[in-house]
Amino acid sequence: MTLTADTPASTTLDLGSARALSCRECGHQTPLAAEFACPQCFGPLEIAYDFPQVTRESIESGPKSIWRYKDLLPVPADVQSFPNTEPGFTRLIQADRLAAELGVRKLWVKDDTGNPTHSFKDRVVAVALAAARELGFSVLCCPSTGNLANAVAAAAARAGWDSVVLIPSSLEQAKITTTAVYGGTLLAVDGNYDDVNRLATELAAEHEEWAFVNVNVRPYYAEGSKTLGYEVAEQLGWRLPDQIVVPVASGSQLTKVDKGFGEFVKLGLVDEKPYKIFGAQATGCSPVASAFEEGHDFIQPVRPDTIARSLAIGNPADGPYVLDSVRRTGGAVGHVTDEEVVEGIRLLARTEGVFAETAGGVTVATAKKLIEAGKIDPDAETVLLITGDGLKTLDAVSAHARPTATVPSTSKAVREALEGR
Amino acid sequence: MTLTADTPASTTLDLGSARALSCRECGHQTPLAAEFACPQCFGPLEIAYDFPQVTRESIESGPKSIWRYKDLLPVPADVQSFPNTEPGFTRLIQADRLAAELGVRKLWVKDDTGNPTHSFKDRVVAVALAAARELGFSVLCCPSTGNLANAVAAAAARAGWDSVVLIPSSLEQAKITTTAVYGGTLLAVDGNYDDVNRLATELAAEHEEWAFVNVNVRPYYAEGSKTLGYEVAEQLGWRLPDQIVVPVASGSQLTKVDKGFGEFVKLGLVDEKPYKIFGAQATGCSPVASAFEEGHDFIQPVRPDTIARSLAIGNPADGPYVLDSVRRTGGAVGHVTDEEVVEGIRLLARTEGVFAETAGGVTVATAKKLIEAGKIDPDAETVLLITGDGLKTLDAVSAHARPTATVPSTSKAVREALEGR
Ligand SMILES: Cc1ncc(COP(=O)(O)O)c(C=O)c1O
Ligand SMILES: Cc1ncc(COP(=O)(O)O)c(C=O)c1O
Ligand SMILES: [Zn+2]
Ligand SMILES: [Zn+2]
Repeated sequence: MTLTADTPASTTLDLGSARALSCRECGHQTPLAAEFACPQCFGPLEIAYDFPQVTRESIESGPKSIWRYKDLLPVPADVQSFPNTEPGFTRLIQADRLAAELGVRKLWVKDDTGNPTHSFKDRVVAVALAAARELGFSVLCCPSTGNLANAVAAAAARAGWDSVVLIPSSLEQAKITTTAVYGGTLLAVDGNYDDVNRLATELAAEHEEWAFVNVNVRPYYAEGSKTLGYEVAEQLGWRLPDQIVVPVASGSQLTKVDKGFGEFVKLGLVDEKPYKIFGAQATGCSPVASAFEEGHDFIQPVRPDTIARSLAIGNPADGPYVLDSVRRTGGAVGHVTDEEVVEGIRLLARTEGVFAETAGGVTVATAKKLIEAGKIDPDAETVLLITGDGLKTLDAVSAHARPTATVPSTSKAVREALEGR
Repeated sequence: MTLTADTPASTTLDLGSARALSCRECGHQTPLAAEFACPQCFGPLEIAYDFPQVTRESIESGPKSIWRYKDLLPVPADVQSFPNTEPGFTRLIQADRLAAELGVRKLWVKDDTGNPTHSFKDRVVAVALAAARELGFSVLCCPSTGNLANAVAAAAARAGWDSVVLIPSSLEQAKITTTAVYGGTLLAVDGNYDDVNRLATELAAEHEEWAFVNVNVRPYYAEGSKTLGYEVAEQLGWRLPDQIVVPVASGSQLTKVDKGFGEFVKLGLVDEKPYKIFGAQATGCSPVASAFEEGHDFIQPVRPDTIARSLAIGNPADGPYVLDSVRRTGGAVGHVTDEEVVEGIRLLARTEGVFAETAGGVTVATAKKLIEAGKIDPDAETVLLITGDGLKTLDAVSAHARPTATVPSTSKAVREALEGR
């Protein structure tokens, strides 16, 4: 069954202006449901909408969270009446001191560490939870490289749902504690993320009440990342930036930022203009950067080995679509070593007072490299997406971030220690 | 010299509607300057204002940060044009699940972990930095129990200022790394907070370009906490709550939340109504709670011994004023053991998905105790101030927050581990 543009929306589900699931590969449409693969070609499904009229004013009068964009997301109209983490609308700061260090004219940092569990994952989980409730699920689940685990456990706790979270047992201690503290079931698996993801996919098929946010409700979940694109555009004063740098794990976020920009143009909320999207990876897990460099359309999976564990997805589901977005807009995908990641974290912290996790270090360091390589135009305006928090990956910098001195509690000792300053 | 209400404001300084410094003890007024003690009686100075006309609409049309209240703070009119961390306007969430567990009718959680360095200290530091710039300082400094250290180092980095931060060397590793990463000078002192504070006071007298935010510019700094009161009132829909629970270290924050409520009433922004303010301390550092219980007006200093290190101020400067606010409004000051602190953190996390630091555990656990004791009315509306982030005090809960199981990477092992669920 192929739905056409005027197939009526499902009458039993309230998922806002979402109208159908549409295959990214063959365009085949199916009704809204908890499906993620095309019944015709197994391609990934995404949400198709009939957007209502939205104006800058209607959005501006909304809440200070992603729900200001609820008419553009696959969520019920009454989404705010259920307890949720109310993520989003994080600060976009003008980063003049970092700009000066990087030798660019105008730079912005979108600081998504201000979210409830301090990463952009709160956005995607909030959308997934709202859709999952409407789709009849009652347990919130995920395989995760850490941030998603935090976000799922927290969102489930607040909603009063059970949660089941699967993580690689090698994860940073902070991401383990910060998931377990919310209660729920947390399974540490002796394997890497790709192993954990495979196990989760099996479980999703076996438990019909379990919504694995990034597996069986992935089309809904993924839409949450559009709000990063929306917010950047709104916070710039209703216009698109020239260039944006996005960290890439599965690649979902990057493609949705692109989608968000495109939707704002189509809706007449911003003027159409060219923009370039850049992807950032750690060298130790850079399958998308490799494909980009080699001019391939497909992704050769890798076995991750990097301190940027939140980006350590060796077989990225949305890799090919990242290549599409980046190539279509004239961007690039770069990658940086673990040492450069640490330098990136420190550079951002000391110039802008923003302490990012390793994924943020990847973004900053890759931006630096792409500027040096002449791929990012220093005279055009650039936005860096800082999607996770330094407090979750302290080990990356703890050897470099120590007290200047430790002194006895006397005036003399303190004065002496400060003399060299 | 005593300034009267119509003494002209200083013509050289732009500190908004701030008009003079006023002694909390004797009422003596002195011109705006970097002073913190009354020249007549050595009492603490606070800011006196000539507030302009402000309306709900004028505030609502401001930025989504504390600067929406800039007309009510001792900062220049152009405060937003200097790089700053843009803190505040954090979420206020309705906490129905926690309310049910605590047996109260209506409960709200003000989640200040969403601030740039994840504590309410970003508010006070942003105000201190703006005032310090205007007062001619060029180095941002503090003694700190941790959160203030993070906030000062980050704000200085973003502003391009040098910073000098003094901390007890026993501080949580997370708070040390998260301060040092921003650059600046960080001195770890082998002593407790009260030792560090004394050393800072000496240094403040010796370095005229150094603004110790909570020492020589304390009157300005302290005003930043009013924004917590303002935001709660605005986010409740322009009205005051019946009851609010505030953690107490120096006691500044509690008194300024009270001041903020009072100002909103005077400005006609909310209706006047009775409200009760409750203070929360850890038993291992509860000098204000002791004075409250014993009916004293003065504070007997203690030597702190608690996991709530951010509240470990044994000789709290604003202790007597906390007693005033609490007694005047009909509230109370309670205290809880370290075990109760941990339980409080876990309770908040599993019911509302908010992971607080030990100070938040103190607030939740004290609220529970005051409800059980009949001091907090379960039928009236209550707000809990969650002022700091669980990621900074992981050790407090890490023994309790562990994976449900660690399993090999096989479907069989995962299924078995989930069976008991
Ligand atoms: C902090 C952070 N940034 C970026 C990403 C990348 O997201 P995506 O899988 O959508 O590419 C992740 C994924 O876990 C993450 O945790
Ligand atoms: C998280 C947190 N909450 C509350 C307080 C108490 O603040 P005050 O000293 O204003 O009482 C502090 C002080 O450092 C703190 O770090
Ligand atoms: Zn298809
Ligand atoms: Zn006096």
